[in-house]
Amino acid sequence: MIRADEGMGFLLKYENVAWFENGEVRILDRRIYPIQTKFVICTRYKEVAQAIKDMVTQSAGPYTAALMGMALAAYEGRYKSKDQLLTYLKQAAYDLSHARPTTSSRMIEITNDSFKLAQQCIEQNIIGIQLVEELRMFAFRYINDNYLRFEKVGKYLADQIPQGGTILTQCFAETVLGTVLKECKRRNNPIKVICAETRPYFQGARLTASLAFDMGFETTVITDNMPAFVMQEKHVDLFTSAADIITLDGHVVNKIGTFQMAIAANYLGIPYFVTGIPSSTHKDMSNVHIEHRDPDLVMKSLGTKITMDGVKGYYPTFDVVPPKLVSGVITDLGMYSPYNLSQYINDKKK
Amino acid sequence: MIRADEGMGFLLKYENVAWFENGEVRILDRRIYPIQTKFVICTRYKEVAQAIKDMVTQSAGPYTAALMGMALAAYEGRYKSKDQLLTYLKQAAYDLSHARPTTSSRMIEITNDSFKLAQQCIEQNIIGIQLVEELRMFAFRYINDNYLRFEKVGKYLADQIPQGGTILTQCFAETVLGTVLKECKRRNNPIKVICAETRPYFQGARLTASLAFDMGFETTVITDNMPAFVMQEKHVDLFTSAADIITLDGHVVNKIGTFQMAIAANYLGIPYFVTGIPSSTHKDMSNVHIEHRDPDLVMKSLGTKITMDGVKGYYPTFDVVPPKLVSGVITDLGMYSPYNLSQYINDKKK
Repeated sequence: MIRADEGMGFLLKYENVAWFENGEVRILDRRIYPIQTKFVICTRYKEVAQAIKDMVTQSAGPYTAALMGMALAAYEGRYKSKDQLLTYLKQAAYDLSHARPTTSSRMIEITNDSFKLAQQCIEQNIIGIQLVEELRMFAFRYINDNYLRFEKVGKYLADQIPQGGTILTQCFAETVLGTVLKECKRRNNPIKVICAETRPYFQGARLTASLAFDMGFETTVITDNMPAFVMQEKHVDLFTSAADIITLDGHVVNKIGTFQMAIAANYLGIPYFVTGIPSSTHKDMSNVHIEHRDPDLVMKSLGTKITMDGVKGYYPTFDVVPPKLVSGVITDLGMYSPYNLSQYINDKKK
Repeated sequence: MIRADEGMGFLLKYENVAWFENGEVRILDRRIYPIQTKFVICTRYKEVAQAIKDMVTQSAGPYTAALMGMALAAYEGRYKSKDQLLTYLKQAAYDLSHARPTTSSRMIEITNDSFKLAQQCIEQNIIGIQLVEELRMFAFRYINDNYLRFEKVGKYLADQIPQGGTILTQCFAETVLGTVLKECKRRNNPIKVICAETRPYFQGARLTASLAFDMGFETTVITDNMPAFVMQEKHVDLFTSAADIITLDGHVVNKIGTFQMAIAANYLGIPYFVTGIPSSTHKDMSNVHIEHRDPDLVMKSLGTKITMDGVKGYYPTFDVVPPKLVSGVITDLGMYSPYNLSQYINDKKK
């Protein structure tokens, strides 16, 4: 049932994201990788929630971490009574899914599914280490299904990249980045990857560039003030990003910076393709809450303060690209217009 | 003759830029200020040229440094014969003005003027320490004239900022930033200043924010991927930048990032005002050479490497804003349309 991901770059190997084993969840600390390869070890699910909140892992990492956190919660509660265990797991599902506000609806969905499975197991007297294993396997299945889905997305995105073309991206598109590059490799298309570094955490410079280079592609890092100039000068074929949320009315919520890159791409006549699954929970932006993080973080680089005392910082984590700047939404069922995403929901039901 | 600049923030105090005294030019190392306050001490003009090349000082700093470097060259050559001294000073003017390519034409102009003065002095037998003092006073006059000119520019820019308004800028607009803030203070206009941090050197976070805060204004630093979102969300009244070159046909050459901020401002209906003096040397972009610097710099932050070995970097230092994205060019004679800058040259002759 569990597929290997050989050839996708070690950043995507499951054990490098968030892995439950022997009573602990090990989370690769993406805030510092590849400068250092360190893991945050969590022996309580609350530490997993805190790690998600602290952005130890980002992009698709939190989903894996949350589900592994559910297995850990079951492990913590293995000697509890059935009732106590259910209460504990319900709380865990809540805490893990609410660690960060913007993506909470999808997190609620998946931790709820994990909780429902736990309920069924407990009713059938599957408890203790057996329950832990069930929840761990649920996390595996989630990762696996996600991988299979994004393998399709990656293929549809690869269709848009000309032979030897150049793509620009920012932050860390995680699974879809891996699958599109794997597909380009399969097609012998030696594309070039340009990554905006993505301050303040440098996910583009550290994670995206490492993965692309590790998979054998020519990879160039630029600072976040360069995308427009580089799009114009370097013959970028397309700008692409993943999304934390794609609302049904075509708004893309993604890492701060996506908006201005989409504006620049539009100005320069370069298509912007977002990859991901349109949300059934978010019909529009009305129930999306944009997370703001500690302003101190933007006044630091790698932990060193760069501003004078008294200067303020401001740190919105995500921004929103309106549908008019989105050239296409690339899903597991193909590409859709941002203005016609209900079609995706209908096609999915078929 | 030399005006004090009290109230303009210590970053603008002459001695904190590049100062010749007692046989050495002391240059504030802006690559690390205010994290550390360090000076690069040059006892040979070639060290000044190297410091300019190494971006120890940026923005308006190199012009001061180059002219102080001319005084230093005269000091170095104080025991040479007149002919040898002239040759030495000619070489100094060349080396100092060619340390960086994009701004070389203005640098050639001012170091040539310094050299011509030296020629006249030597003809009149003003040599030795007396000549050094003449060249040092020439540097002072240049700084002073520049300050007086940008005091006017600052006033015209202040006219555009509503009471309690918010301006967005990036990199370090140096003199004009000081003069516009001084003017806002004089008018009791407590404007808010938002600075994009300006990677890889963080001039916005370190220099602009320090100066604005030091002068008593509410100052907020954002990362370079945030301007579009912040322009939209924070009711920014205008985006403004200085320029390294404003061509006569209305193209603005300025620190990388200006282009995409101008695109975003245009998209969001926010005016972009560039401050500076239209170039008489650059009729259009044909004789502008965009400097590229060591790509390694974008793969580092504060000296720490953030990318995996094998990943490339790319570092164009400037970008170009086309006239259609420029709402107005604010000069010492007032505001001009970017499409009508020959008018400025004519008005200047009056």
